[in-house]
Amino acid sequence: MPKIVDHAQRRTEIVHALWQVIYLKGIDGVSFRSVAEAAGISVGRVQHYFPSRSELILEGCRLIVDSAEVADPDDADASSDSGSADAVAALRDFCFAFIPAGETMRIGASVWYTYVARAVMDEQIADIIRASDRATLELGERLHLAVAGAAGSRADDGNVAARRWAMRLIALGKGLAQEVMLDERSAASAKEILEAELAPLVAH
Amino acid sequence: MPKIVDHAQRRTEIVHALWQVIYLKGIDGVSFRSVAEAAGISVGRVQHYFPSRSELILEGCRLIVDSAEVADPDDADASSDSGSADAVAALRDFCFAFIPAGETMRIGASVWYTYVARAVMDEQIADIIRASDRATLELGERLHLAVAGAAGSRADDGNVAARRWAMRLIALGKGLAQEVMLDERSAASAKEILEAELAPLVAH
Repeated sequence: MPKIVDHAQRRTEIVHALWQVIYLKGIDGVSFRSVAEAAGISVGRVQHYFPSRSELILEGCRLIVDSAEVADPDDADASSDSGSADAVAALRDFCFAFIPAGETMRIGASVWYTYVARAVMDEQIADIIRASDRATLELGERLHLAVAGAAGSRADDGNVAARRWAMRLIALGKGLAQEVMLDERSAASAKEILEAELAPLVAH
Repeated sequence: MPKIVDHAQRRTEIVHALWQVIYLKGIDGVSFRSVAEAAGISVGRVQHYFPSRSELILEGCRLIVDSAEVADPDDADASSDSGSADAVAALRDFCFAFIPAGETMRIGASVWYTYVARAVMDEQIADIIRASDRATLELGERLHLAVAGAAGSRADDGNVAARRWAMRLIALGKGLAQEVMLDERSAASAKEILEAELAPLVAH
């Protein structure tokens, strides 16, 4: 069904043009005209794929969230062998995924912070970010359990520990991402700090 | 010298109006006209205090950085009694200062992230943020040393440990600040996570 593929691809191209506009001019610089110019297509074509400006802006937020999300390894859950090399690798990938690498990701991070800033007054954007953060937290907990197991004396203890670890790790990853984006810290230095959070688990 | 006081106060008022404009319309929404309207003064008066639009935007970044900076307690350094109640209180204040409290600070945080997003393409804004982050890191190291002392066998070990602790704590504080701003986490929950980073030091 080539038409469907074209449709999805065209929408993606328009969203990439949208990100360019947001990067250069902020969300208030977004109009059908500015996005059409950045995409090199007609205003009518943008409107064909996105009937409203606000729907286009929201789709841009959804796609940037999707692109930042860590691939969820199907086999990484608490039922697999605790502390297996695969489970450790999956948890490490999860940690490192916060760190932007290269110029494209720095621009993506800038667009991302523009959405974060806007979320304070835009509940729809805030909802998209919150849903993504909830999914990230659940994945982080699951991956932690797969490495560390339910270490406590009661079944719940492992979950509590996993949640606490994931919450701290995710906040740490967000802060480090910001510093890497601003060239205050190298990606390698950020990964070193994250690796130190993994070390006690791997030794476990 | 009342004229000087008035001058500084008027500049501050104009910067507050600038922040309002940035919050509502982004940095590209900033013009002498939009800021004058928000401040309820004439365009000429804004220009009297800020000859250029870009100088006004940079001053807004400097002031938001200043307002976010933790007060540096003069007596908190490694020469004071290690682990004194004052030193612990100063370190706790340092940690908690990352967390935005109340609606005004949420709006301030939104303006802050707008500057962070812009810093990727604006070296002058990036320089202001980096200088502030360097000062924060130095203060964090100093406050950590005042609590934990130079614990290592060599004089340098304490400094290395303090730097490592401060780097992690600051990144964590930034990530938690973002979550509190987006109402994903309460300020109390963020403080609980930061308190857990203090606990081993206080027990020290």
